[in-house]
Amino acid sequence: MGARAIVLFAHGARDPQWAEPFENVRARVERRLPNTSIELAFLEFMQPDLATAVEKLIAGGASEIDIVPLFMAQGGHLKQDVPRIVDDLRARFATAKISLSPPIGEVEPILQAIADWVVGDSR
Amino acid sequence: MGARAIVLFAHGARDPQWAEPFENVRARVERRLPNTSIELAFLEFMQPDLATAVEKLIAGGASEIDIVPLFMAQGGHLKQDVPRIVDDLRARFATAKISLSPPIGEVEPILQAIADWVVGDSR
Repeated sequence: MGARAIVLFAHGARDPQWAEPFENVRARVERRLPNTSIELAFLEFMQPDLATAVEKLIAGGASEIDIVPLFMAQGGHLKQDVPRIVDDLRARFATAKISLSPPIGEVEPILQAIADWVVGDSR
Repeated sequence: MGARAIVLFAHGARDPQWAEPFENVRARVERRLPNTSIELAFLEFMQPDLATAVEKLIAGGASEIDIVPLFMAQGGHLKQDVPRIVDDLRARFATAKISLSPPIGEVEPILQAIADWVVGDSR
Protein backbone atom coordinates (compact mmCIF):
# COMPACT_ATOMS: atom_id res chain seq x y z
CA MET A 1 0.00 0.00 0.00
CA GLY A 2 1.37 3.41 -0.94
CA ALA A 3 0.98 6.83 0.57
CA ARG A 4 -2.48 8.35 0.87
CA ALA A 5 -3.29 11.95 0.06
CA ILE A 6 -6.33 14.24 0.04
CA VAL A 7 -7.41 16.99 -2.32
CA LEU A 8 -9.92 19.44 -0.86
CA PHE A 9 -11.70 20.64 -3.97
CA ALA A 10 -13.66 23.91 -3.97
CA HIS A 11 -15.34 26.06 -6.58
CA GLY A 12 -13.04 29.10 -6.49
CA ALA A 13 -13.84 32.80 -6.88
CA ARG A 14 -12.14 36.01 -8.02
CA ASP A 15 -11.87 37.32 -4.44
CA PRO A 16 -8.77 35.90 -2.65
CA GLN A 17 -10.58 36.04 0.72
CA TRP A 18 -12.99 33.46 -0.65
CA ALA A 19 -10.41 30.67 -0.08
CA GLU A 20 -10.09 31.28 3.68
CA PRO A 21 -12.64 28.70 4.95
CA PHE A 22 -11.01 26.07 2.76
CA GLU A 23 -7.52 26.93 4.06
CA ASN A 24 -9.02 26.69 7.53
CA VAL A 25 -10.39 23.18 6.85
CA ARG A 26 -7.05 22.15 5.37
CA ALA A 27 -5.19 23.30 8.51
CA ARG A 28 -7.62 21.34 10.73
CA VAL A 29 -7.24 18.18 8.66
CA GLU A 30 -3.43 18.51 8.54
CA ARG A 31 -3.24 18.67 12.33
CA ARG A 32 -5.23 15.44 12.56
CA LEU A 33 -3.47 13.59 9.74
CA PRO A 34 0.15 14.77 9.99
CA ASN A 35 1.43 12.02 7.68
CA THR A 36 -1.07 12.69 4.89
CA SER A 37 -0.38 15.21 2.12
CA ILE A 38 -3.30 17.58 1.70
CA GLU A 39 -3.77 19.97 -1.20
CA LEU A 40 -6.45 22.50 -2.05
CA ALA A 41 -7.65 22.65 -5.65
CA PHE A 42 -10.23 24.80 -7.43
CA LEU A 43 -12.66 24.34 -10.29
CA GLU A 44 -12.29 27.90 -11.57
CA PHE A 45 -10.86 31.37 -10.86
CA MET A 46 -8.20 30.06 -8.41
CA GLN A 47 -5.08 27.92 -8.67
CA PRO A 48 -4.11 25.09 -8.58
CA ASP A 49 -6.68 23.22 -10.63
CA LEU A 50 -7.48 19.60 -9.79
CA ALA A 51 -5.06 18.08 -12.31
CA THR A 52 -2.16 20.21 -11.03
CA ALA A 53 -2.87 19.24 -7.41
CA VAL A 54 -3.14 15.52 -8.24
CA GLU A 55 0.04 15.66 -10.32
CA LYS A 56 1.93 17.27 -7.42
CA LEU A 57 0.69 14.63 -4.96
CA ILE A 58 1.66 11.77 -7.28
CA ALA A 59 5.10 13.33 -7.90
CA GLY A 60 5.43 13.39 -4.09
CA GLY A 61 4.74 9.67 -3.85
CA ALA A 62 0.99 9.45 -3.27
CA SER A 63 -0.65 6.33 -4.66
CA GLU A 64 -4.17 6.74 -3.20
CA ILE A 65 -5.80 10.13 -3.60
CA ASP A 66 -9.19 11.04 -2.17
CA ILE A 67 -10.81 14.06 -3.84
CA VAL A 68 -13.26 15.69 -1.40
CA PRO A 69 -15.57 18.29 -3.00
CA LEU A 70 -16.18 21.14 -0.56
CA PHE A 71 -19.35 22.09 -2.43
CA MET A 72 -22.66 22.40 -0.62
CA ALA A 73 -24.70 20.87 -3.40
CA GLN A 74 -24.68 18.80 -6.58
CA GLY A 75 -25.22 21.03 -9.59
CA GLY A 76 -23.96 20.90 -13.14
CA HIS A 77 -20.32 21.24 -12.04
CA LEU A 78 -20.30 18.23 -9.73
CA LYS A 79 -22.60 16.11 -11.85
CA GLN A 80 -20.93 16.62 -15.21
CA ASP A 81 -17.65 18.55 -15.11
CA VAL A 82 -16.03 16.91 -12.09
CA PRO A 83 -16.64 13.22 -13.02
CA ARG A 84 -15.18 13.98 -16.46
CA ILE A 85 -12.09 15.65 -14.92
CA VAL A 86 -11.67 12.69 -12.52
CA ASP A 87 -11.98 10.18 -15.39
CA ASP A 88 -9.27 12.07 -17.27
CA LEU A 89 -7.03 12.00 -14.18
CA ARG A 90 -7.58 8.26 -13.70
CA ALA A 91 -6.60 7.65 -17.33
CA ARG A 92 -3.54 9.89 -17.01
CA PHE A 93 -2.35 8.53 -13.65
CA ALA A 94 -3.33 4.91 -14.05
CA THR A 95 -1.05 3.61 -11.27
CA ALA A 96 -2.78 5.71 -8.60
CA LYS A 97 -6.14 4.97 -6.99
CA ILE A 98 -8.22 8.16 -7.28
CA SER A 99 -11.54 8.32 -5.42
CA LEU A 100 -14.21 11.02 -5.38
CA SER A 101 -16.19 11.68 -2.18
CA PRO A 102 -19.76 13.01 -2.10
CA PRO A 103 -20.25 16.78 -1.66
CA ILE A 104 -20.47 18.05 1.92
CA GLY A 105 -24.16 18.88 1.47
CA GLU A 106 -24.90 15.14 1.40
CA VAL A 107 -23.08 14.36 4.64
CA GLU A 108 -25.42 13.83 7.59
CA PRO A 109 -23.21 15.24 10.42
CA ILE A 110 -22.40 18.35 8.38
CA LEU A 111 -26.08 19.04 7.62
CA GLN A 112 -26.75 18.54 11.33
CA ALA A 113 -23.97 20.99 12.29
CA ILE A 114 -25.44 23.58 9.91
CA ALA A 115 -28.96 23.09 11.32
CA ASP A 116 -27.62 23.26 14.90
CA TRP A 117 -25.96 26.55 14.12
CA VAL A 118 -29.05 28.02 12.44
CA VAL A 119 -31.17 27.02 15.43
CA GLY A 120 -28.68 28.38 17.98
CA ASP A 121 -28.12 31.56 16.03
CA SER A 122 -31.86 32.24 15.79
CA ARG A 123 -33.01 31.60 19.35
CA MET B 1 -41.72 41.59 20.45
CA GLY B 2 -43.15 40.16 17.26
CA ALA B 3 -42.80 36.88 15.51
CA ARG B 4 -39.34 35.71 14.43
CA ALA B 5 -38.60 34.10 11.11
CA ILE B 6 -35.59 32.71 9.25
CA VAL B 7 -34.59 32.82 5.61
CA LEU B 8 -32.07 30.17 4.57
CA PHE B 9 -30.37 31.86 1.65
CA ALA B 10 -28.46 29.83 -0.94
CA HIS B 11 -26.84 30.54 -4.29
CA GLY B 12 -29.17 28.53 -6.55
CA ALA B 13 -28.42 26.53 -9.70
CA ARG B 14 -30.16 25.39 -12.86
CA ASP B 15 -30.37 21.78 -11.65
CA PRO B 16 -33.42 21.23 -9.37
CA GLN B 17 -31.53 18.55 -7.38
CA TRP B 18 -29.13 21.25 -6.28
CA ALA B 19 -31.66 22.52 -3.70
CA GLU B 20 -31.89 19.20 -1.81
CA PRO B 21 -29.29 19.88 0.94
CA PHE B 22 -30.95 23.21 1.65
CA GLU B 23 -34.42 21.61 1.88
CA ASN B 24 -32.83 19.06 4.21
CA VAL B 25 -31.44 21.82 6.48
CA ARG B 26 -34.82 23.58 6.43
CA ALA B 27 -36.60 20.40 7.54
CA ARG B 28 -34.12 19.91 10.40
CA VAL B 29 -34.51 23.52 11.58
CA GLU B 30 -38.33 23.36 11.32
CA ARG B 31 -38.42 20.31 13.59
CA ARG B 32 -36.39 22.18 16.20
CA LEU B 33 -38.21 25.52 15.89
CA PRO B 34 -41.83 24.55 15.22
CA ASN B 35 -43.14 28.06 15.93
CA THR B 36 -40.71 29.83 13.60
CA SER B 37 -41.50 30.40 9.92
CA ILE B 38 -38.60 29.27 7.75
CA GLU B 39 -38.23 30.04 4.06
CA LEU B 40 -35.60 29.14 1.52
CA ALA B 41 -34.47 31.86 -0.89
CA PHE B 42 -31.95 31.94 -3.73
CA LEU B 43 -29.58 34.48 -5.22
CA GLU B 44 -30.02 33.25 -8.78
CA PHE B 45 -31.48 30.51 -11.01
CA MET B 46 -34.06 29.38 -8.40
CA GLN B 47 -37.17 30.89 -6.82
CA PRO B 48 -38.09 32.59 -4.55
CA ASP B 49 -35.55 35.39 -4.43
CA LEU B 50 -34.69 37.00 -1.11
CA ALA B 51 -37.16 39.89 -1.47
CA THR B 52 -40.05 37.54 -2.25
CA ALA B 53 -39.24 35.32 0.75
CA VAL B 54 -38.97 38.30 3.13
CA GLU B 55 -42.19 39.82 1.77
CA LYS B 56 -44.02 36.51 2.39
CA LEU B 57 -42.71 36.28 5.97
CA ILE B 58 -43.71 39.87 6.75
CA ALA B 59 -47.16 39.33 5.21
CA GLY B 60 -47.41 36.32 7.56
CA GLY B 61 -46.68 38.49 10.60
CA ALA B 62 -42.92 38.22 11.05
CA SER B 63 -41.28 41.28 12.58
CA GLU B 64 -37.74 39.91 13.10
CA ILE B 65 -36.15 38.10 10.19
CA ASP B 66 -32.74 36.45 10.28
CA ILE B 67 -31.19 35.88 6.86
CA VAL B 68 -28.71 32.98 7.06
CA PRO B 69 -26.45 32.62 4.00
CA LEU B 70 -25.82 28.93 3.29
CA PHE B 71 -22.70 29.82 1.32
CA MET B 72 -19.36 28.24 2.14
CA ALA B 73 -17.36 31.40 1.55
CA GLN B 74 -17.43 35.18 1.17
CA GLY B 75 -16.97 36.15 -2.46
CA GLY B 76 -18.32 38.99 -4.54
CA HIS B 77 -21.92 37.86 -4.03
CA LEU B 78 -21.87 37.95 -0.26
CA LYS B 79 -19.60 40.97 0.04
CA GLN B 80 -21.35 43.25 -2.42
CA ASP B 81 -24.64 41.92 -3.81
CA VAL B 82 -26.17 40.58 -0.62
CA PRO B 83 -25.56 43.62 1.65
CA ARG B 84 -27.10 45.80 -1.07
CA ILE B 85 -30.15 43.53 -1.33
CA VAL B 86 -30.51 43.50 2.47
CA ASP B 87 -30.23 47.31 2.64
CA ASP B 88 -33.01 47.56 0.03
CA LEU B 89 -35.18 45.18 2.07
CA ARG B 90 -34.58 47.16 5.27
CA ALA B 91 -35.63 50.37 3.49
CA ARG B 92 -38.69 48.68 2.01
CA PHE B 93 -39.81 46.90 5.19
CA ALA B 94 -38.78 49.50 7.75
CA THR B 95 -40.98 48.13 10.54
CA ALA B 96 -39.21 44.75 10.54
CA LYS B 97 -35.82 44.00 12.06
CA ILE B 98 -33.79 42.24 9.36
CA SER B 99 -30.43 40.72 10.33
CA LEU B 100 -27.79 39.02 8.19
CA SER B 101 -25.74 36.13 9.64
CA PRO B 102 -22.18 35.26 8.56
CA PRO B 103 -21.73 32.56 5.91
CA ILE B 104 -21.44 29.00 7.17
CA GLY B 105 -17.77 28.86 6.15
CA GLU B 106 -16.99 31.26 9.01
CA VAL B 107 -18.73 29.21 11.68
CA GLU B 108 -16.32 27.27 13.89
CA PRO B 109 -18.47 24.17 14.63
CA ILE B 110 -19.37 23.79 10.94
CA LEU B 111 -15.71 23.99 9.85
CA GLN B 112 -14.96 21.43 12.55
CA ALA B 113 -17.73 19.11 11.31
CA ILE B 114 -16.34 19.35 7.77
CA ALA B 115 -12.80 18.60 8.97
CA ASP B 116 -14.05 15.68 11.10
CA TRP B 117 -15.76 14.20 8.09
CA VAL B 118 -12.74 14.63 5.81
CA VAL B 119 -10.53 12.95 8.44
CA GLY B 120 -12.97 10.09 9.05
CA ASP B 121 -13.61 9.59 5.34
CA SER B 122 -9.89 9.43 4.59
CA ARG B 123 -8.61 7.07 7.28
